[in-house]
Amino acid sequence: MEQQAALRAAIAQGQGAEPADLVLKGGRIFDLVTGRLFDGDLAICGDRIVGAQGRYKGREELDVAGLTLVPGFVDAHLHIESSLVTPHEFERCVAPRGVTTAICDPHEIANVLGVAGVRWFLDAAAEMVMDLRVQLPSCVPSTEMETSGARLEAADLLPLLAHPKALGLAEVMNYPGVLAGDPGLLAKIAAFAEAGRHRDGHAPLLRGLPLNGYLAAGIRTDHEATSAEEALEKLSKGMAILIREGSVSKDLRALLPVLTERHSPFLALCTDDRNPLDIAEQGHLDHLIRAAIAGGAEPLAVYRAASHSAARIFSLGDRGLLAPGWRADVVALDSLESCRARLVLCGGRVVGEGAFAARPPLPAIGRGSVRAPRVAAADFLRPAPPGERPVIGVVEGKIITERLAAAPPRDASGAPLADPSRDLAKVVVVERHGRNGNIAAGLVRGFGIRRGAIAATVAHDHHNIVCVGTDEADMALACNRLAEIGGGYAVAAGGAVLAELACPIAGLMSELPFDEVRRTLEELRSAAQSLGVVLHEPFLQLSFLALPVIPHLKITDRGMVDADRFELIGP
Amino acid sequence: MEQQAALRAAIAQGQGAEPADLVLKGGRIFDLVTGRLFDGDLAICGDRIVGAQGRYKGREELDVAGLTLVPGFVDAHLHIESSLVTPHEFERCVAPRGVTTAICDPHEIANVLGVAGVRWFLDAAAEMVMDLRVQLPSCVPSTEMETSGARLEAADLLPLLAHPKALGLAEVMNYPGVLAGDPGLLAKIAAFAEAGRHRDGHAPLLRGLPLNGYLAAGIRTDHEATSAEEALEKLSKGMAILIREGSVSKDLRALLPVLTERHSPFLALCTDDRNPLDIAEQGHLDHLIRAAIAGGAEPLAVYRAASHSAARIFSLGDRGLLAPGWRADVVALDSLESCRARLVLCGGRVVGEGAFAARPPLPAIGRGSVRAPRVAAADFLRPAPPGERPVIGVVEGKIITERLAAAPPRDASGAPLADPSRDLAKVVVVERHGRNGNIAAGLVRGFGIRRGAIAATVAHDHHNIVCVGTDEADMALACNRLAEIGGGYAVAAGGAVLAELACPIAGLMSELPFDEVRRTLEELRSAAQSLGVVLHEPFLQLSFLALPVIPHLKITDRGMVDADRFELIGP
Repeated sequence: MEQQAALRAAIAQGQGAEPADLVLKGGRIFDLVTGRLFDGDLAICGDRIVGAQGRYKGREELDVAGLTLVPGFVDAHLHIESSLVTPHEFERCVAPRGVTTAICDPHEIANVLGVAGVRWFLDAAAEMVMDLRVQLPSCVPSTEMETSGARLEAADLLPLLAHPKALGLAEVMNYPGVLAGDPGLLAKIAAFAEAGRHRDGHAPLLRGLPLNGYLAAGIRTDHEATSAEEALEKLSKGMAILIREGSVSKDLRALLPVLTERHSPFLALCTDDRNPLDIAEQGHLDHLIRAAIAGGAEPLAVYRAASHSAARIFSLGDRGLLAPGWRADVVALDSLESCRARLVLCGGRVVGEGAFAARPPLPAIGRGSVRAPRVAAADFLRPAPPGERPVIGVVEGKIITERLAAAPPRDASGAPLADPSRDLAKVVVVERHGRNGNIAAGLVRGFGIRRGAIAATVAHDHHNIVCVGTDEADMALACNRLAEIGGGYAVAAGGAVLAELACPIAGLMSELPFDEVRRTLEELRSAAQSLGVVLHEPFLQLSFLALPVIPHLKITDRGMVDADRFELIGP
Repeated sequence: MEQQAALRAAIAQGQGAEPADLVLKGGRIFDLVTGRLFDGDLAICGDRIVGAQGRYKGREELDVAGLTLVPGFVDAHLHIESSLVTPHEFERCVAPRGVTTAICDPHEIANVLGVAGVRWFLDAAAEMVMDLRVQLPSCVPSTEMETSGARLEAADLLPLLAHPKALGLAEVMNYPGVLAGDPGLLAKIAAFAEAGRHRDGHAPLLRGLPLNGYLAAGIRTDHEATSAEEALEKLSKGMAILIREGSVSKDLRALLPVLTERHSPFLALCTDDRNPLDIAEQGHLDHLIRAAIAGGAEPLAVYRAASHSAARIFSLGDRGLLAPGWRADVVALDSLESCRARLVLCGGRVVGEGAFAARPPLPAIGRGSVRAPRVAAADFLRPAPPGERPVIGVVEGKIITERLAAAPPRDASGAPLADPSRDLAKVVVVERHGRNGNIAAGLVRGFGIRRGAIAATVAHDHHNIVCVGTDEADMALACNRLAEIGGGYAVAAGGAVLAELACPIAGLMSELPFDEVRRTLEELRSAAQSLGVVLHEPFLQLSFLALPVIPHLKITDRGMVDADRFELIGP
């Protein structure tokens, strides 16, 4: 009966028989179907639009004269953990920029806390202002070559589908597993297919017949296309392309040629991993939209990809147009080109501190998740034979590494040492899930670090402690400090901690407001630079040193990994 | 486990590791995403495509060299009853033309048999070769001004949603009821919204704020736009437009200007009501496609509307592209322009007599549904005052009628008579659901009938007997003959039945093969012409004389109806 009353009110308000709950007066609507701009009011009843292209009276009226109205933006794929803040803080930061729907994959917290972490995201989503939809992580752990905090099988995921915020199966990264017919993975894909849920993809550089095999599994979306040619092949094989512009992986420029009106029904935008510095300095989806239009893409194609098409691709059929009967997700912009939001409505509510204040606080989770052994310099000094050893070659701005080799200096016991004069640093991984206390050590080149250590528990995908440094004592100090503060980032030198960001939520997310996290990250970056570090984003690059599903040479708690052959390298 | 095995096979066949179940060799694929044509094989495993744009080996191979492959067509809205044959015969006729999905509204049988008629369609659909989806009729009866055989409320419809072939709520024709907040109608709309099902529209000429009110109810599709201007307004208000080309209502020419690539994601094609003569002579959706391209529409826009877009609009997300992971609904054409199908696959099965023969026979239904009183000439001779009386003015090729007036001759008792010299015929409606035996009589102009009578039980929307003639005895003979044969069509003159088509399934559908029905219809047309009838489609026009939701003057078993004011006209 309540639904019927809401329906009756919507119909009455839509035909102007009663004042609307809310009217945006005097704006200009960008119609994503015909590409036309319409002057006129936008009438809203409850959470839905009920009137457009007409004049309306409202019980509440907001003046949007001079502004252009577009549908709320949909981030089609991201890991909120990469923003280093809670979902609450994330939306405080991006919803005012026009992001009214985000499709997140809590892959990071799932690797630490398992189902409990996913549930925490689902329950948080239920109370948020934006519509956060949660994909259920498909690849936890993403590899057997590292110790993870959890393991998720189909039987763990399926009960979560009953949650109203659960969407589908998150990026199926293990494409070799799909092609090889891995039974556990196929069980997940089959179960989600049977439930009629979306199965999201992740298939960098996959082409030709192997791509066909992957698609035959019913996977329909991909955010890993990095060239127009790759994107075109995937599009023409029925795969929707999510154009990604993250903090590490930036594909917008390369994919601009496919961002056309013709392809627009099959395109979406996403941020994947975007850190607080980039969000603050450049923006979020608003940045992608601005950059795409500045790069020459048609506004109609861009705004379709940013809203209606993304929603359609993920079967969120209630949103993406500013028309009667559609969800009242509205962004009022200075102009289509500037994409500066002056007012944002999400489900008919004005996005702002008032709406945010009404949310119940998030329950605590993941405290004390960094259960690493207390380490000392000696733990990182293990004798090894003389001669050349493999060295991870870090490449500025890329998560792919090079496979190098060098003969390091050794101490009296024969343990390899750093050699800053040759930009040869030590890298260690310390298992921190309380499973086995594994410690692995190796060598890395490219950071430029000349003294001290930098360390993180944000280390994809399994989030053990990863630390790069030249001095074993400082490295141990940084690692131990992370265990003390519940995880996060630390910089140590000369026996002192120079900077740190505590991320007590699973060792992944801070409890601080977004702005403070951003300021602390700037301090961390300065501290790292004071040690000689030359990379623009040393902590992001540190975070990907332990990800063995990306070529070519990586390190996990079990040792150095040949990521091309998916093999651990013996000592 | 069975699903997992199917998935494993699909992946293996897609990457070419195993021979595919079926390969279409050497064709050219029309890619509806990029608009490009790709030479290459199409590999199929079970019911899905697993390979494209490559070379494949198959356990079975079919040569399609020289042919162009497009996705199977989706008829987005039709009443199968209007084809006058069973669902089995309907698909035998249209599936070989490329229609692999049809979204039907069993509105006609529902008005006669209620839930039992809808269930019969649902169960028939489950055994068919094409994928027939059934919308649940929203407006049974469509008006209170006529006696119907059944009444369907929300509580009757909701249990049917559990059937795998049930799609959503069929065309909500009663738009005045929506705008007035009719509680029974709102209950249906709200219930289908809550179930997450599509709500289909029907809103001829509705524009401006009333259209907004109708759309605010969450109705998303319309097949009643008859001008480009109307279609553009509806499109820009988020309503998908189903371009209709039926036997009576033909909108393709008027809507060609909106059939563009830009709008194509929001367009579909439909036939609504298409009779066996037109299907045989012109075609079905293939005719629409040919005509649209011949009329200047871009093939990409047309084929998108005919398949992928229609599927998306109705949330059938598994079909509409020829790509790995998509349903194997494939049409091999001589050319995009000719749209002549040489081979059709539906869910991976070759459409043809072999597949049709495998269907279990349809259960009998609706026999003896014509429960009309036995009538005599005297029943149609009721005294009336002298002077002018309202006359229905039939317009060739339109279901809208004119409101005319004339003073008919009268017999000795004062009963109005026909006057062929002024093209003034009598029209009667005889209630045939066994409810009340109502008989109403009136006058009609435009048939040109000079003697005898033509009669039908196919009389939208409630399917009482409607009969037009000049001789009351022949009219009674035709009506009584329809009751004897279980309904259908009859032509009588000089005390004899000249031609007839028995439609024993609810008085709506023949049990004969499609070709025989077509031949019989030609006989009926000839017989009608022999009586002087000048209309090209006299039986179609007869069928709409009793539809009081269409302007301006109509007749039901309760009397003449002012269809503009929705009022019965007193004697």
